[in-house]
Amino acid sequence: MRRIALGVQYDGAPFCGWQAQPHGNTVQNELERALREFARTPLHTVVAGRTDTGVHGLGQVVHFDTELERADISWVRGTNSFLPKTIAVQWAKPMPDDFHARFSAFERTYYYVLYISAERSPMMRTQAGWVHTPLDITAMRAAAAHLIGEHDFSAFRSSQCQSKTPIKHLYQIDVQQQGNFVHFRFRANAFLHNMVRNMMGCLVSIGSGRRPAEWMIDVLASRNRDCAAPTFMPDGLYLAQVGYPEQFAVPAPQTGAVPWSTLWTEQPET
Amino acid sequence: MRRIALGVQYDGAPFCGWQAQPHGNTVQNELERALREFARTPLHTVVAGRTDTGVHGLGQVVHFDTELERADISWVRGTNSFLPKTIAVQWAKPMPDDFHARFSAFERTYYYVLYISAERSPMMRTQAGWVHTPLDITAMRAAAAHLIGEHDFSAFRSSQCQSKTPIKHLYQIDVQQQGNFVHFRFRANAFLHNMVRNMMGCLVSIGSGRRPAEWMIDVLASRNRDCAAPTFMPDGLYLAQVGYPEQFAVPAPQTGAVPWSTLWTEQPET
Repeated sequence: MRRIALGVQYDGAPFCGWQAQPHGNTVQNELERALREFARTPLHTVVAGRTDTGVHGLGQVVHFDTELERADISWVRGTNSFLPKTIAVQWAKPMPDDFHARFSAFERTYYYVLYISAERSPMMRTQAGWVHTPLDITAMRAAAAHLIGEHDFSAFRSSQCQSKTPIKHLYQIDVQQQGNFVHFRFRANAFLHNMVRNMMGCLVSIGSGRRPAEWMIDVLASRNRDCAAPTFMPDGLYLAQVGYPEQFAVPAPQTGAVPWSTLWTEQPET
Repeated sequence: MRRIALGVQYDGAPFCGWQAQPHGNTVQNELERALREFARTPLHTVVAGRTDTGVHGLGQVVHFDTELERADISWVRGTNSFLPKTIAVQWAKPMPDDFHARFSAFERTYYYVLYISAERSPMMRTQAGWVHTPLDITAMRAAAAHLIGEHDFSAFRSSQCQSKTPIKHLYQIDVQQQGNFVHFRFRANAFLHNMVRNMMGCLVSIGSGRRPAEWMIDVLASRNRDCAAPTFMPDGLYLAQVGYPEQFAVPAPQTGAVPWSTLWTEQPET
């Protein structure tokens, strides 16, 4: 038996989230169907982060166990030939038995992309959240700073969350404006269900002036979901990167597959 | 009778181009249906540039004539409420009788977005062309320079082109690399049918080293479509801006509706 890890990208818009459903139409359903068609045997995948309906994957990671021997590039190209254009395997790599796509992960990074304009953008309709009015970037940065650290994030936790503990360590929230877009980057050891979207709801409330930046302190301290803003739309949310111990040498995610990702990297201008 | 101009954006991927068809499913069909539902009377639109299947509109302009009196913002919001999410009116403005969306235009700007990566990008599958291998930006810029000026562009003209003359004035081709993407900007008085996609086919042939930059001189001089590269895919092509005489004070297109458009403008960083 060998364990294979895959890096997977997908447009979450047409899918009912990651998790396999009896009626199909989830990313896991499609990926496992494609793997089965390529490998000619059922393969069960374990995923790093079970994204919700409408949430995109740039740096999603899965693993599965198989008796089959295939070259890494064959797993990539073979599986892709059976996948719809909304999903693409980016890399494949044999892993030791003690690698686990979910439990070996010690860090997750999400991006949120927000479009600010009086009228909606057809091109970004499923790829960015949308607000009509300008946002105060400074206020949002100040509010975000109150969330950094190890906290009980119950105020940002959905009632369906299955995490054992509401205590997570949020390392970083970056906010950058570029043209009509505001780009957010969230990095934590792990996230509760809907945590990024619930934080986004509060950040947008603050950015639009409906609440002061210090309100975030009260929301966090309340540990009460009813105190926070409504869950923000999923469209602009991307699972960007999953961090694993160095020993596994997991390939870097191809976050460069979206043009605004250069905001978060050195820009190799020509 | 009053003449109204609209700025229109659309995702070209789900449509069979701009031009109305009896079977429907074109951008014009959808726009005229929405206008009819909002205005409760048929309105016929005249468009600046009839884009093909899969080609996107950022700065498309149309006009129509009507007896109705509506506030500009009502034309925008009212029509949008009847449009699918793939199309959005960005502005509306009353125009003098001598304004014509097509014949008053003296300049068109197109963007082409190219994604370079070994594996495909699900997020950009309909929003960028895709090539597997790195491209030589310097060679493509050198080749593009040979096209600038007033020329007979028959070598880049599709057999279905209805233009009266193959002679067009190409003012500018810009090429910029950013991360995994190469961004092209084409500006001319007018373009022949498929002209940008045919130039893109040649530029990619040169960028990938299959042809030298000077080959572009021969292709142009041949005035023979058979000498050029195959027509490149439509996915990364955007009608970005249509230029009109200043007297009409046509509103600027909301090209900021795509995040990479800051490449072509001053970047208001925060």
